[in-house]
Amino acid sequence: MIKQRLENLRKEMKKEGVHAYIIPTSDFHETEQVATYFQARKWMSGFTGSAGVLVVLLDKAALWTDGRYFIQAPKELKGSTIELMKAGMEGTPTIVEYITSNLKEGMCVGFDGRTINANDARKYEQAFGFHGLSLKVDEDLVGRIWTDRPAMPCAKTFYYDEKYSGRTINEKLEMVRKEMKLAYANSYVITKIDEIAWLFNIRAQDIEHVPLPLSYATVTLQDATLYINQSRLDAISRAKLVQANVCVKDYMDIYEDCMELKGPVLVDPSSANSKIVFSIKEKLVEMQSPVILLKARKNEVELASTRIAHIKDGVAVTKFMYWLKKNIGKVEMTEYSAALKLHEFRAQQPNFFDDSFSTIPAYGANAAMMHYHATEEDCATLKPEGFFLVDSGGHFFEGTTDITRTFVLGPTTEEERIWFTRALRSHIRLAKANFLFGCKGFNLDILSRGPLWDYDMDYQCGTGHGVGHLSNVHECPNGFRWRIVPERNDSCVLEEGMIQSNEPGVYIEGVLGIRHENEYVVQKGNKNHYGQFMHLECLTFVPFDREAIDPSLMNQDEIEWLNNYHKECVEKLSYGLEEDELDWLKEICKPL
Amino acid sequence: MIKQRLENLRKEMKKEGVHAYIIPTSDFHETEQVATYFQARKWMSGFTGSAGVLVVLLDKAALWTDGRYFIQAPKELKGSTIELMKAGMEGTPTIVEYITSNLKEGMCVGFDGRTINANDARKYEQAFGFHGLSLKVDEDLVGRIWTDRPAMPCAKTFYYDEKYSGRTINEKLEMVRKEMKLAYANSYVITKIDEIAWLFNIRAQDIEHVPLPLSYATVTLQDATLYINQSRLDAISRAKLVQANVCVKDYMDIYEDCMELKGPVLVDPSSANSKIVFSIKEKLVEMQSPVILLKARKNEVELASTRIAHIKDGVAVTKFMYWLKKNIGKVEMTEYSAALKLHEFRAQQPNFFDDSFSTIPAYGANAAMMHYHATEEDCATLKPEGFFLVDSGGHFFEGTTDITRTFVLGPTTEEERIWFTRALRSHIRLAKANFLFGCKGFNLDILSRGPLWDYDMDYQCGTGHGVGHLSNVHECPNGFRWRIVPERNDSCVLEEGMIQSNEPGVYIEGVLGIRHENEYVVQKGNKNHYGQFMHLECLTFVPFDREAIDPSLMNQDEIEWLNNYHKECVEKLSYGLEEDELDWLKEICKPL
Repeated sequence: MIKQRLENLRKEMKKEGVHAYIIPTSDFHETEQVATYFQARKWMSGFTGSAGVLVVLLDKAALWTDGRYFIQAPKELKGSTIELMKAGMEGTPTIVEYITSNLKEGMCVGFDGRTINANDARKYEQAFGFHGLSLKVDEDLVGRIWTDRPAMPCAKTFYYDEKYSGRTINEKLEMVRKEMKLAYANSYVITKIDEIAWLFNIRAQDIEHVPLPLSYATVTLQDATLYINQSRLDAISRAKLVQANVCVKDYMDIYEDCMELKGPVLVDPSSANSKIVFSIKEKLVEMQSPVILLKARKNEVELASTRIAHIKDGVAVTKFMYWLKKNIGKVEMTEYSAALKLHEFRAQQPNFFDDSFSTIPAYGANAAMMHYHATEEDCATLKPEGFFLVDSGGHFFEGTTDITRTFVLGPTTEEERIWFTRALRSHIRLAKANFLFGCKGFNLDILSRGPLWDYDMDYQCGTGHGVGHLSNVHECPNGFRWRIVPERNDSCVLEEGMIQSNEPGVYIEGVLGIRHENEYVVQKGNKNHYGQFMHLECLTFVPFDREAIDPSLMNQDEIEWLNNYHKECVEKLSYGLEEDELDWLKEICKPL
Repeated sequence: MIKQRLENLRKEMKKEGVHAYIIPTSDFHETEQVATYFQARKWMSGFTGSAGVLVVLLDKAALWTDGRYFIQAPKELKGSTIELMKAGMEGTPTIVEYITSNLKEGMCVGFDGRTINANDARKYEQAFGFHGLSLKVDEDLVGRIWTDRPAMPCAKTFYYDEKYSGRTINEKLEMVRKEMKLAYANSYVITKIDEIAWLFNIRAQDIEHVPLPLSYATVTLQDATLYINQSRLDAISRAKLVQANVCVKDYMDIYEDCMELKGPVLVDPSSANSKIVFSIKEKLVEMQSPVILLKARKNEVELASTRIAHIKDGVAVTKFMYWLKKNIGKVEMTEYSAALKLHEFRAQQPNFFDDSFSTIPAYGANAAMMHYHATEEDCATLKPEGFFLVDSGGHFFEGTTDITRTFVLGPTTEEERIWFTRALRSHIRLAKANFLFGCKGFNLDILSRGPLWDYDMDYQCGTGHGVGHLSNVHECPNGFRWRIVPERNDSCVLEEGMIQSNEPGVYIEGVLGIRHENEYVVQKGNKNHYGQFMHLECLTFVPFDREAIDPSLMNQDEIEWLNNYHKECVEKLSYGLEEDELDWLKEICKPL
């Protein structure tokens, strides 16, 4: 089947005179997860992983993916004639090296310009041009042969009321235009769906767990236009848009319209697709999309509302914890069925909208695999011993949550308790941080990572990511990481109102996986002649499982933090619990 | 006098058609301290501070300096007709704003192109060009009127033997040419005197406490040339240079020769003076000067030798500490006389060359002023109470040291002991750091600063700076700071062999000043599948004054670190101490 698809694509490539065709894993908006309509790479290769680039030549093909998929990819590619390229490993050619070494001067490389951002497209242009290859970027060749392609997402939109979002469309447009003026831009093209959803207070369930409608937008100093499949628009959103003088046009109209924009035109070339950017003939102002920071600094209404979402979420997860503890060893349960149970508790909460991502339930050594995915058919049975790591979150109308707890299901080993406590110290050290305004995530990361580095141990991923408000659960530009990777855009100055996770962990292959994750919002503290001090306000309230905590490994200030935190858990969660649940909660939240 | 000099300068400006003349505080090499020959800004303005820019217009003049000098500058400028501009304060115009608002289109701005680096000159060019002003950068107008100008430094050079430097000139040239090839450069112009001194193993006492000869250098893939006043060269250096096929030419010949260099020509525009950079007509490769990193990664010979220098220095400072403790309240002493005594102890050590900077001896509240300068005429008398902070260092032939200790002269207050201990915790937290390779100073800075930030307190300066090897006591590109300031170039990846200080402090205006400074070299630790772990090896050994340490404020691991450190002090220093000194040392180094 894959072979046939490759052959069909090659026929189209020959028609167009294309000798190499690049198929990335992206939609037209650089969305982290892509709707089925955009899963061309998966359809063409059979590889189901979340990251990968397929390159098809006339006589062979190869797929680049990263270390997460070095076991899964060969299985899925078997029999496809597609060669696996282990990205980043010694000896693996880059995509550019592969194409330039297989093509001859004068040949042509193609891709759908809408699926590759302007920065990446320019790099391709430069590298291929250097080797005498031409580019053809205006044809979706996969689209021509994909006869049963799924439809574009078209769920009904809904207006995200100001009682949650805190600002009217007009207020937001005013904020945006202020930024445009500072950048000397007359027009601004917005292509990221989370930015557009924020700007127009609009939501829709287009992609699983991502409540954002596929759309584009342009803002000028006078006008604003939303490009969206118009039949999708609900009546309230339509009325609100009209009221704010926002013009609504069809999704694909952006490509013609952006050629008419008055320059200078502000675009973010790290996310705007190359077809749009290259079609603008006016002067460009290239910079980080100003909406990113406006959106990341949550306003008071968003924060108040988010606090409510977290309390509901805390009640649901605490009920789940109680249920686990009472039933483990008595009721049969698997990773998968337990995750369903957790979903049930969340869904019982008022204003629940969706899980914010696919729950990761990982028992014992499974939790050492950071991208472990349990399915109904293939998952572990829970036993009354060791750790059960559950990473999950909810979209409530009030906001988005993300939490990981590592639950103790029965007897634990000393090694398990030691690492559980060390990882908890990591969490607490960062949670307690007091820092001067101006700090970025990389200044603070070692507070969390350091206590594990002390044992020559690392969790090999970021300590925390920004979180959206009924939006992406991973939101830039704030976060906690120690390395600066410009493409990742998660190292901004930590400003008041920014929400991010704190999720250090310990992962020992074949043995155990532990993660302790809460969300925190940056708040102002004291201002004195040294500057403005900042700290983190905790949003997440669910006890850490004391059965694996060894207080003798903790400093006194860490124990105090934990005791206060557990006291707050009781205060905040009791309203939503049954009597037996509350009695149990009080017991497990007693001071250490 | 100043008025007359300004008038004389204005005559020269008129002759040249210059309407604004900029006089920075720099030599032709961006050296941190400049020799008297180059102190044109001081001579023209009367202002003696270490930082400042004078701008002379035909009818007025202004001097920009920073917060360190807002008290001193007005006194020194009084009667000069020069207006003080408090740089960075609200309402203060920038130099560009001042000049563009006072000059009219078509007018001309001048400076000596040798005193302004290429990056800064380009910024001026762009800004003034935008306002229709022309530039004249090839005349040293101050030089024309400065009749009693001091001579250029011309101390005899000496060869810095390979037994200290660890590499021959040829070995170093080979390292440099390897970097040039990686950068696709055929030629390389080196203008920083510390880089040239490293490359040619040459030293001289040109500037107080800075043992580096004024010179330029060019390296091509085939040849190397040292530009220096030839009469200064000692016989050994001359022989070694000949042996390494290094051509020697006169100091000023660089300006003609660099026009003949084969391109691409590597230059570092952040330090190379604009006259040199702009005179090169070949293609430029602009990047950080490769010698910077080669020099910062100390080799095994340099490290072994530096360890010896630090032990000698430790003996000297420990003897001084003993002398202080025995004599305070009995012998009359001032900040100034105590510093002289310390110099005496250092100078007694074999192979002592010079102090590595002017000792900062600061008693009591004086130590709260970070740039406090005690003179014989104006300094405090030491009393048997409170703290005496002494920041000092030595150049030995084996290497350069920098240490601060805060000595207890008698009874202390509880507040003093609390802050002393907290600042010590800051020092220890960073000293104990274990971190993955790839970390930069800004990843680690909070280890030291965090324990003070916890009390809404900040020391408002870097935690540590790189240190040269019989070279500048402040050396880029390594260091510990939390903010990235590109011009400062002190945020590189911390690599094996890099030496930097760790010097957190507490400064409370009018009350006290505390600083605890040691030097540390980056070393490799365990390598496992998480990566290469790194840690800091301590170079400095002098006890921290236990009389102000309150162990109840420290964590157990911090106390352990300190006890081990004090044990090492006894082991390493005893060889150089008299019996009474050693008995005392053992007593004050007992475990807490």
